Amino acid sequence: MSDIPYKIYLDENEMPQAWLNLQACLPEPLDPMLNPQTKQPVSAADMEPVFCHEAVLQEFNTTDKFIPIPQSVRDFYVMYRPSPLVRAYNLEKYLQTPAEIYYKFEGTNTSGSHKLNSAVAQAYFAKQQGLTSLTTETGAGQWGTALSMACGFYDLKLTVFMVKVSSEQKPYRKAVMETYGAKVIPSPSETTQIGRQILREHPGTGGSLGCAVSEAMEVALHTENCRYALGSVMNHVILHQTIIGLECQKAMQKYDIYPDVVVGCIGGGSNFGGLIAPFAVDKIAGEREVRLLAVEPASCPSLTRGKFAYDFGDTGRMTPLMKMYTLGSGFIPSPSHAGGLRYHGMNPIVSKLYNMGYIDAVSYSQLKVFEAAKLFARLEGYLPAPESSHAIRAAIDEAVKCREKGEKKRILVGVTGTGYFDLAAYQAYNSGSMEDGQLSEEELRSGLAGVPKV
Amino acid sequence: MSDIPYKIYLDENEMPQAWLNLQACLPEPLDPMLNPQTKQPVSAADMEPVFCHEAVLQEFNTTDKFIPIPQSVRDFYVMYRPSPLVRAYNLEKYLQTPAEIYYKFEGTNTSGSHKLNSAVAQAYFAKQQGLTSLTTETGAGQWGTALSMACGFYDLKLTVFMVKVSSEQKPYRKAVMETYGAKVIPSPSETTQIGRQILREHPGTGGSLGCAVSEAMEVALHTENCRYALGSVMNHVILHQTIIGLECQKAMQKYDIYPDVVVGCIGGGSNFGGLIAPFAVDKIAGEREVRLLAVEPASCPSLTRGKFAYDFGDTGRMTPLMKMYTLGSGFIPSPSHAGGLRYHGMNPIVSKLYNMGYIDAVSYSQLKVFEAAKLFARLEGYLPAPESSHAIRAAIDEAVKCREKGEKKRILVGVTGTGYFDLAAYQAYNSGSMEDGQLSEEELRSGLAGVPKV
Repeated sequence: MSDIPYKIYLDENEMPQAWLNLQACLPEPLDPMLNPQTKQPVSAADMEPVFCHEAVLQEFNTTDKFIPIPQSVRDFYVMYRPSPLVRAYNLEKYLQTPAEIYYKFEGTNTSGSHKLNSAVAQAYFAKQQGLTSLTTETGAGQWGTALSMACGFYDLKLTVFMVKVSSEQKPYRKAVMETYGAKVIPSPSETTQIGRQILREHPGTGGSLGCAVSEAMEVALHTENCRYALGSVMNHVILHQTIIGLECQKAMQKYDIYPDVVVGCIGGGSNFGGLIAPFAVDKIAGEREVRLLAVEPASCPSLTRGKFAYDFGDTGRMTPLMKMYTLGSGFIPSPSHAGGLRYHGMNPIVSKLYNMGYIDAVSYSQLKVFEAAKLFARLEGYLPAPESSHAIRAAIDEAVKCREKGEKKRILVGVTGTGYFDLAAYQAYNSGSMEDGQLSEEELRSGLAGVPKV
Repeated sequence: MSDIPYKIYLDENEMPQAWLNLQACLPEPLDPMLNPQTKQPVSAADMEPVFCHEAVLQEFNTTDKFIPIPQSVRDFYVMYRPSPLVRAYNLEKYLQTPAEIYYKFEGTNTSGSHKLNSAVAQAYFAKQQGLTSLTTETGAGQWGTALSMACGFYDLKLTVFMVKVSSEQKPYRKAVMETYGAKVIPSPSETTQIGRQILREHPGTGGSLGCAVSEAMEVALHTENCRYALGSVMNHVILHQTIIGLECQKAMQKYDIYPDVVVGCIGGGSNFGGLIAPFAVDKIAGEREVRLLAVEPASCPSLTRGKFAYDFGDTGRMTPLMKMYTLGSGFIPSPSHAGGLRYHGMNPIVSKLYNMGYIDAVSYSQLKVFEAAKLFARLEGYLPAPESSHAIRAAIDEAVKCREKGEKKRILVGVTGTGYFDLAAYQAYNSGSMEDGQLSEEELRSGLAGVPKV
């Protein structure tokens, strides 16, 4: 073994003190968000009634390369950060690869994933602005749990609209959120106008993320001192997630190493954007050659099979239009699909960089993903979330290529969360009843047909 | 804030390289284990057919103060250790206490608790001895999960007898163990003689830990190259758990600090013994004044209300007699009791030190424990296991006493695991349906009546 330890930690005084604003480092500016009625660019003022003031400022900030992390957020971060950056010695040995594999594991905090990085920031901004409550939606529960923790800490009221079918399948996720003081309402609910309407039109529905978003936004708009918080897709969320990539960069610098390949899973893009940010900046500046590899599920392949176009961010078509890779806002991945990464669109920054060729993308169907997850769990100890396991699968395949070609590449993999809350999926895989989750041409065509003409 | 960081980590070259053998540092030797038939001391040779050779040697080692941690075990330890030692700044501030509170959190590894520390060692010893399989039992699943991870890593077959009612209530624990390659059998089962006998006598029973132990031991005794592994109570398990206390000691030495109070929860004693070990050694040697505080549930109070006597280690009365604090081997805590810490007896080393006055003990009923757990989760982020929350409750009360007396004590608390797998208990607490879990005089008397006359 070399002199690189299993885990590279940073001391508190080595922790990043500013987020990296990828939007200010792009080779070309982003296409503006558009108002779907007027087709005119959306302004910061348009978004203020919905989102926290500071989040909106960040969403539109195209000038500051670094944005300081407020002291209070840094104080919260050090409660669970730095997350471990681990050299996967056991996996390397098993694969007999000359490649070096490093993984950044975001699953040791109680919310179980990287989502907490943005939840803390958004809750702090709400507190600072004098708000007294937030609303949000959650599907599987990662984001809802993270925001519950953050609101518990900052003493803010939180209402979480949880997709009804998820709240029934995952009662314990609800219990965690309630333990942190959040009010969890299965969606659709009788508590909002849109919820009542949906229930009238679709009695007995299990709900959807799109519907939960609509309810959460309605409550935020009609409650005093209240805003809505979103856990992915938006530029300010990627900004907060750059703490992941910045920690990796700093930890690797301590040992004078730099990755040749950075691999992350991708859904809405916030984890991936945060992981690659410092390396993408070097690549854009022409200072480094580094392969940035986004890994998506074959059942929801927005980058590899989607269209680069203006589309809505939600199923209910309430959001502004964003220029992004999309499968169509009506697209819903197969029910056999496990875990997150089920978003039809993609963050605009990531979309732009992919479109310009700075980012590569691959997709995997889920049996190969779970095979990699089990191997990783056995060799490296941590049980990875299904989402994260997409990146692990791709990293393993990169390392095997290195073995075949005799290349000693350094591979950095983002492992976004723990698989604790996805054991039903592991159970299905173990028992052989899991489907592979391929997307048919017909499903793809029908999704893409819904992309509006702008 | 002072210059002590939120988290104190150790570098890999600072990690302890040997376990601390508390048994070799006792002021008086332990009373020997006795064969229940002959009342003669049990020898190492008597135990070899059941346990791994190295574990047995360690069980009887009364001479070596330090026992080297094998390189392979240290390589596994660094995959998830050092566990964070965190300064509870937020909790201190909330309590307005001059006391300093430090907690050692063992819940960030995938098994979710400290149990992995001994599981790795025992699996390694089995591998080294040329065994091909292990057996064990598990109730709530912490130990079974930990040993599954360790056996997965060392490529050993593992059979886990899981208390039937638990395996039905916690299907996901089963899924984790299976993901790591273990075979999980609900107990009592048709696969063993004792299981079949129990099923004949008690058709429809939900099983018990005592019954699962018997099945696991039967299989170990009748399978070639197979032994049985136990996750608590025994001296060699405490030995492995001293990694917890040793890391605390070393991390605190870096900042030239020493605890005035060390607080841990206690069930069979392995976590508590491991946590206090280095501090107990200083106290026994007369070098330090330090309060060592064991915290147990009011519903299973072996130290505070039990009897110091020879008793069986299991309900089925198959084990040797051990001199320990006991509530009687037939004692079963109230079904309303949440989490672990439900063992009727106590590790002999801890029992000895308590009997000689080196250790203090208190008990708490569970509503006060969950109140502390929720406060801790909100302020410090980590959702603690119900077991661990007993120690948190006591630490909070110590810190409040410090506020009242104006004392600036340093309090070190062991937080053994995550509450992820105990959300049904949190749910009961949140909804107000949890019982307080007091033990009646009648239950106590009936338990103690079963302690044999030796």
